[in-house]
Amino acid sequence: MIHFDCDYMAGAHPEVLDAIVKNNLVQTAGYGSDNFCARAKDLIREACGTPEAAVHFMVGGTQTNSTVLDGILGRIDGVIAAETGHINVHEAGAVELFGHKVIALPSHDGKLCPAEVRDYLHDFYADDTNEHMVAPGAVYISFPSELGTLYSLGELEQLNAVCHEYDIPLYIDGARLGHGLAASPDVTLPDIARLADVFYIGGTKMGALFGEAVVCTRKSLLPRFFPLMKAHGAVLAKGRLLGMQFEALFSNDLYLRIGRHAVGLAQRLRKTLEDKGFKSFINSPTNQQFFVLPNEVIDRIQALATFEYWGPRGEIESRVRFVTSWETTEQDIAQLEELL
Amino acid sequence: MIHFDCDYMAGAHPEVLDAIVKNNLVQTAGYGSDNFCARAKDLIREACGTPEAAVHFMVGGTQTNSTVLDGILGRIDGVIAAETGHINVHEAGAVELFGHKVIALPSHDGKLCPAEVRDYLHDFYADDTNEHMVAPGAVYISFPSELGTLYSLGELEQLNAVCHEYDIPLYIDGARLGHGLAASPDVTLPDIARLADVFYIGGTKMGALFGEAVVCTRKSLLPRFFPLMKAHGAVLAKGRLLGMQFEALFSNDLYLRIGRHAVGLAQRLRKTLEDKGFKSFINSPTNQQFFVLPNEVIDRIQALATFEYWGPRGEIESRVRFVTSWETTEQDIAQLEELL
Amino acid sequence: MIHFDCDYMAGAHPEVLDAIVKNNLVQTAGYGSDNFCARAKDLIREACGTPEAAVHFMVGGTQTNSTVLDGILGRIDGVIAAETGHINVHEAGAVELFGHKVIALPSHDGKLCPAEVRDYLHDFYADDTNEHMVAPGAVYISFPSELGTLYSLGELEQLNAVCHEYDIPLYIDGARLGHGLAASPDVTLPDIARLADVFYIGGTKMGALFGEAVVCTRKSLLPRFFPLMKAHGAVLAKGRLLGMQFEALFSNDLYLRIGRHAVGLAQRLRKTLEDKGFKSFINSPTNQQFFVLPNEVIDRIQALATFEYWGPRGEIESRVRFVTSWETTEQDIAQLEELL
Amino acid sequence: MIHFDCDYMAGAHPEVLDAIVKNNLVQTAGYGSDNFCARAKDLIREACGTPEAAVHFMVGGTQTNSTVLDGILGRIDGVIAAETGHINVHEAGAVELFGHKVIALPSHDGKLCPAEVRDYLHDFYADDTNEHMVAPGAVYISFPSELGTLYSLGELEQLNAVCHEYDIPLYIDGARLGHGLAASPDVTLPDIARLADVFYIGGTKMGALFGEAVVCTRKSLLPRFFPLMKAHGAVLAKGRLLGMQFEALFSNDLYLRIGRHAVGLAQRLRKTLEDKGFKSFINSPTNQQFFVLPNEVIDRIQALATFEYWGPRGEIESRVRFVTSWETTEQDIAQLEELL
Repeated sequence: MIHFDCDYMAGAHPEVLDAIVKNNLVQTAGYGSDNFCARAKDLIREACGTPEAAVHFMVGGTQTNSTVLDGILGRIDGVIAAETGHINVHEAGAVELFGHKVIALPSHDGKLCPAEVRDYLHDFYADDTNEHMVAPGAVYISFPSELGTLYSLGELEQLNAVCHEYDIPLYIDGARLGHGLAASPDVTLPDIARLADVFYIGGTKMGALFGEAVVCTRKSLLPRFFPLMKAHGAVLAKGRLLGMQFEALFSNDLYLRIGRHAVGLAQRLRKTLEDKGFKSFINSPTNQQFFVLPNEVIDRIQALATFEYWGPRGEIESRVRFVTSWETTEQDIAQLEELL
Repeated sequence: MIHFDCDYMAGAHPEVLDAIVKNNLVQTAGYGSDNFCARAKDLIREACGTPEAAVHFMVGGTQTNSTVLDGILGRIDGVIAAETGHINVHEAGAVELFGHKVIALPSHDGKLCPAEVRDYLHDFYADDTNEHMVAPGAVYISFPSELGTLYSLGELEQLNAVCHEYDIPLYIDGARLGHGLAASPDVTLPDIARLADVFYIGGTKMGALFGEAVVCTRKSLLPRFFPLMKAHGAVLAKGRLLGMQFEALFSNDLYLRIGRHAVGLAQRLRKTLEDKGFKSFINSPTNQQFFVLPNEVIDRIQALATFEYWGPRGEIESRVRFVTSWETTEQDIAQLEELL
Repeated sequence: MIHFDCDYMAGAHPEVLDAIVKNNLVQTAGYGSDNFCARAKDLIREACGTPEAAVHFMVGGTQTNSTVLDGILGRIDGVIAAETGHINVHEAGAVELFGHKVIALPSHDGKLCPAEVRDYLHDFYADDTNEHMVAPGAVYISFPSELGTLYSLGELEQLNAVCHEYDIPLYIDGARLGHGLAASPDVTLPDIARLADVFYIGGTKMGALFGEAVVCTRKSLLPRFFPLMKAHGAVLAKGRLLGMQFEALFSNDLYLRIGRHAVGLAQRLRKTLEDKGFKSFINSPTNQQFFVLPNEVIDRIQALATFEYWGPRGEIESRVRFVTSWETTEQDIAQLEELL
Repeated sequence: MIHFDCDYMAGAHPEVLDAIVKNNLVQTAGYGSDNFCARAKDLIREACGTPEAAVHFMVGGTQTNSTVLDGILGRIDGVIAAETGHINVHEAGAVELFGHKVIALPSHDGKLCPAEVRDYLHDFYADDTNEHMVAPGAVYISFPSELGTLYSLGELEQLNAVCHEYDIPLYIDGARLGHGLAASPDVTLPDIARLADVFYIGGTKMGALFGEAVVCTRKSLLPRFFPLMKAHGAVLAKGRLLGMQFEALFSNDLYLRIGRHAVGLAQRLRKTLEDKGFKSFINSPTNQQFFVLPNEVIDRIQALATFEYWGPRGEIESRVRFVTSWETTEQDIAQLEELL
């Protein structure tokens, strides 16, 4: 059986796991104050081109989103997100648990429209009853989006401009950042670091056992962040594990190699599917592929492969999602293609 | 340099790490719905003698405490704890962040006195203005305590009786549970499971890379716990890692072997210190040893070893803490002893 | 100058104020444990036809909504509301401050569609990833809605049926309940009490200085509610003031007299406006009237009257809102009509 | 029957009530944006000698404390208070509900000791693990204290100096501020305004129906405070009622007249009790008197008067509290004295 359910089904990429194994008996201080973390932060700052940025490591994505947003938002501010945004849909209300409303704007294949964000902010400040409303205190986007789509460099620049016009930070959820960067024709990691005020570099879905690296280029946004992380339960005692993994991910170009590998296989699969006449229902350049398949095809490939079923489309077709990752092999794809 | 700072300075016990390494490429579903977790839960239930208990895995201790307490407490209830309790002192206000007061009662070498807990509860319910006060909704203790001390079986039974008399759960923080069980003359894991309504079996300080296993013997206390964990940022995507580690810890008696190893070395060190005429300032039967040493001795051993400095005692002595763990060797202790 | 801005511009209806004045020097115990509150609760229970209901008094609407919802919702549950619902738009995120998401469904002139609520609930429970989502723990509606519209008795029965089907409470925000009841062709206060699990009878917008009366017909929904109110800052020390006012409002049919008065004048104004050929943009049978007026008419009447401007409609017309209340007189309406 | 239970048993002082009655039919905008509020704020600023201070009106004390503290504290900061502080004991966990720990220091007859506060702050910042602890973000005191005692001007200056040394605000709960000012030999309202960063002038216990006036002399401490009040449910729709009452309280010296009246009667009662040989158990110069009385005396006066019973002291005596207020008359005191 081969698996295309998601990009976090196996353990860690061998180069990441090796870092943990080979340093297992080294003893260090806890809570991230070790040299592995220090080196990993330096590598990340270097890759981002932001020598002054603060870097913080956390364990998982929901934890990272709710902790960072709780840090950058005013006490009762809300955060603008696409209706399909992970924080609005699949984090069990973590943002609200800490007192913040998710202000949901329309999703355009998973993306916010910069002009709509500007209109929302304009209307909010033009409304003289806005002291009775939730103030928008940040903008949240995902790169790539939850639907595998990508903002262009121009769109990111527009979002950055809107945020700066209204003096609120732009926060980018990079759970699959490496897949996005590998697929984007124009956006680089330094672009992300330049255009976001805070973002995170996802590890869990990019070959780590776990771990996300928050990069904050405007340090004043997250003052005294360690105690906030601690209170959120987001500090790992053996923080070194995060340092070791990100050191590996940002050595020898591994982070982008993983992205290119997964995206390359996904695009190969996409081409095969299209060549066979199947239609995608979301046009995704990244490692997630969304296709409408005849139910009979689905039945046939389910004997060999697992993937996400997204519901029927009419009587004889259904929507499905295939995800590739560092674990996926050329052979996995070939096997799947044979059955299509 | 040898280290006695704490019990989470290295990675994982080799048997634990092996479980992660050998299963690295196995693909499973996420969020703890895998067979590793299922097997680990069975092993834990078996070790506890509670075949019906619910078991939940989380990543770290602060996260576990604040999530469990948020689950078992009424919306605005408080939790009774010793003044020295970890939740009252060293979790950056995590319990309060979720709306709950820590009701601090006096610490007796790190422990609550059952009679004082009963008095507090009695007085609360006898006070007819108590609707203006924080209702005590649970009792929190640590086994062993933060000062390395242990409740006797009788004390635990008394606390259990008080809690049941007032119909509130007893919650035991078992960050170092294995060290406590190894050191206790009378308390066993099934006793803990019988006397606590909810407790956790610490992994981080007992040889895991990370991970804590919550055992809830009264399932109605934590209904719908997964979404609460998710909202707290306490769900690990690759939950299997927790399953693998606890499967290892609860195979071949590893959990208690680790406890006995660390406690044995700590008691050997304790005897040496006492034989040399040094006095402990807390009488700890577990893997933490608290001694008053002459400053000249401290200076001498600092060349070889790291440990925690707890402040001066008069002009020529100071209080220090030595902690042993699975990482500590007989040779480490011997080296330290040579310098004393 | 005459005022149609809102229904809380003056103090209290004279019969309400008299109750406060004449009892000013009577001394009572605090926090609502006085006889005025006891009598008012009895009168309310009688008017509702629910002799067993619990009645709780609070000061204002936002406070009432966020406290009641925090009481009836599970720790991290959300509440379904129309996009236009007061809790979603004009309470500055009070519901979220206490950890609960407002799950916004489409507004149909201010109202939820029962079938859409059922679909939402059905889909939630059909989604096997729903443990990662915010569980809908209650349904919130306003009667009348924020746009002055009314649910029919049939619609309320459908909403009640949906809620019971999914075992979640139906909560009705009755900030202007009296205006709604006075205008409804079929819904009575006992109907509201029968079909809602919890609701509140608004005082502030119905002739009180302040005050809202929560009626909970399923007492188990709000156990230990006083401490929760206290922690929310929602307990009035001189609670008697709430008792006195609601005693007055529920004596001599005052509550409905106020409603009929305001609604009668609003409908007279509506007829005049329609007779003059102006169009309403929301069809409201209650004390709020929403019309599109030519800008030149607006300019003319602004010399005499204040009202809410809701924005332009094209180049030469605008949308405005007129609100009547117990303070509005026949003469006020006549004066306005003269200028139209 | 005469009442000495507390200072909020009747309605409002006649001069306060008159202001509400005579302006009842005046129509104003809501939420405190009316001229009554504007004038009251000016009168308060003038009385405080702080022409630039921000003044905010809220309804009750618990609400005020939790809203102000939520405003001035960092997201997870705690607030230092005496163990006996109202926020620590009698507000049902309101401060914790919003995420903040009350850091309880020893009470000295209801008061914090400035040197102990300094020591706490010093030790906190000297502890290099303090990122795992709750940071003290403000100091809370009550003037007068919950036990009727007063800080001297020197003590307030010391507290102010400690707070400024550690750059955290001093917040004064003035629920009974007028009683305290009337009783103090040296502290004036301008002193309070000069030495506190934020404080509130209590209305509820000083002759208002309800209402507390927050004075913030460092405006940057409470930016965007209206939406925070709104989210806390602390905005009164007919905010004018707060303006009218505080305008009355700060006209014709009413606020201090009420204080002097109540304190004068309390001190007369105290002298009588002492002359008869009874002992106070707290030495209170304000309107609360705490005495140990023989049980037979208590039984006798209970036929005539109500007061608070604070528990037995030995077999034949008990502790009781008498409170005077604007409602108390010379005749009430005389009647009580006859029975002693």
